[in-house]
Amino acid sequence: MTGTLTIAGLGPGSEALVTPEVTAALATATDILGYAPYVARVPPRAGLTLHPSDNREELQRASEALRLAAEGGQVVIVSSGDPGVFAMASAVFEALDRAPQWRDLPIRVLPGVTAMLAAAARAGAPLGHDFCAINLSDNLKPWAVIEKRLRLAAEADFAIAMYNPRSASRPEGFGRALALLREAGCGERLVIFARAISAADEKIEIVTLNEATPEMADMRTLVILGNSQTRRVGRWVYAPRRAE
Amino acid sequence: MTGTLTIAGLGPGSEALVTPEVTAALATATDILGYAPYVARVPPRAGLTLHPSDNREELQRASEALRLAAEGGQVVIVSSGDPGVFAMASAVFEALDRAPQWRDLPIRVLPGVTAMLAAAARAGAPLGHDFCAINLSDNLKPWAVIEKRLRLAAEADFAIAMYNPRSASRPEGFGRALALLREAGCGERLVIFARAISAADEKIEIVTLNEATPEMADMRTLVILGNSQTRRVGRWVYAPRRAE
Repeated sequence: MTGTLTIAGLGPGSEALVTPEVTAALATATDILGYAPYVARVPPRAGLTLHPSDNREELQRASEALRLAAEGGQVVIVSSGDPGVFAMASAVFEALDRAPQWRDLPIRVLPGVTAMLAAAARAGAPLGHDFCAINLSDNLKPWAVIEKRLRLAAEADFAIAMYNPRSASRPEGFGRALALLREAGCGERLVIFARAISAADEKIEIVTLNEATPEMADMRTLVILGNSQTRRVGRWVYAPRRAE
Repeated sequence: MTGTLTIAGLGPGSEALVTPEVTAALATATDILGYAPYVARVPPRAGLTLHPSDNREELQRASEALRLAAEGGQVVIVSSGDPGVFAMASAVFEALDRAPQWRDLPIRVLPGVTAMLAAAARAGAPLGHDFCAINLSDNLKPWAVIEKRLRLAAEADFAIAMYNPRSASRPEGFGRALALLREAGCGERLVIFARAISAADEKIEIVTLNEATPEMADMRTLVILGNSQTRRVGRWVYAPRRAE
């Protein structure tokens, strides 16, 4: 049997947000690779080998998946959310770029509901107008690049979805990001702290940027800064469709 | 029975990309409202009234949905893709903002796979690094705002997902956007033209910005301009995880 590699997005947490095509791919897989908490979302069954790994091992995991597919496996790499947004799809294509012998393997990327869409839906419609998504982790890019992008995004009046705002190993960055955005004149804008959306311990907090503190986020939090027009109505936050 | 309003995303076209929670909401609806081609994706059945409307009538449709829910209906407004991205969720909250009598209605927003995620998955991983999403329609904002955002997005080195690039009523804007991005130094970047992704007549074209022409897009096309690091490997296009 010809091996295949599928890069699948499991959505933010709830089974009700997993697409049917991802469910189908998981049902016929022989091998599932991914960061351990995501692999743990796939129920074990006969004929399926689970390969959980640490989250710093993306490129190694991608190469291992390509190797297993080349040997004939029906291999699925799982990411939370969407696999193409700050997740495994880029790592797989980087690995493929270094390994010409695997270029002809059948590969599919199956999209999913990425964290910012689930968070936005729970809060209302803060991404209803132009927006950007920035990964605040400086593991793979200099902090100066992050600062430059935040400044330009504020100037463009984008709503700004911030992924990976804060981790134990990088506690300072998010506070600097909040300060920079306040200096850029966004202090009165609304901020949404959306933690573990669609999971049992889901939590949403909505404040102005001036009221926001770094401790309101951890690595399971997705942060959305509204644009200058973003408003509240009742318990909801939304970006009007119009801009002047 | 208490009425409810659900704002649901149908994903880009294929049934395999509709989330189970959206499928469940459609199964118990009494009324479905939306732009006619999206309402046509919901099979008729006894007890369900379909309310298709024109795509220029968002606010009127939102008010009608709130009214039907206030009268006790299980009302679902459908959007293609994700309802929070250039779709119906913002219009509903705008309508709610003008109609205090409906503030206590139970409202839910159900996220979906938005067009840029489906397009990115088909092409590889062009949104694997920081990116932005800009609606190129100037129905609801001045063209000058679009130009300013495109310039700042290019300077930030975001990948840029462009929604609604071109319509019969606005044929010139997209050509101006391409010219502006070339002037901003993006000529050698890769551009993905993704049309009707996940539908039967799906089509993907990948060229450099210098090779791109306005005629390559229509209103069913989602356009993604890669960032400066975006590369090809075989038939795939991806943004490396690292930036310098």
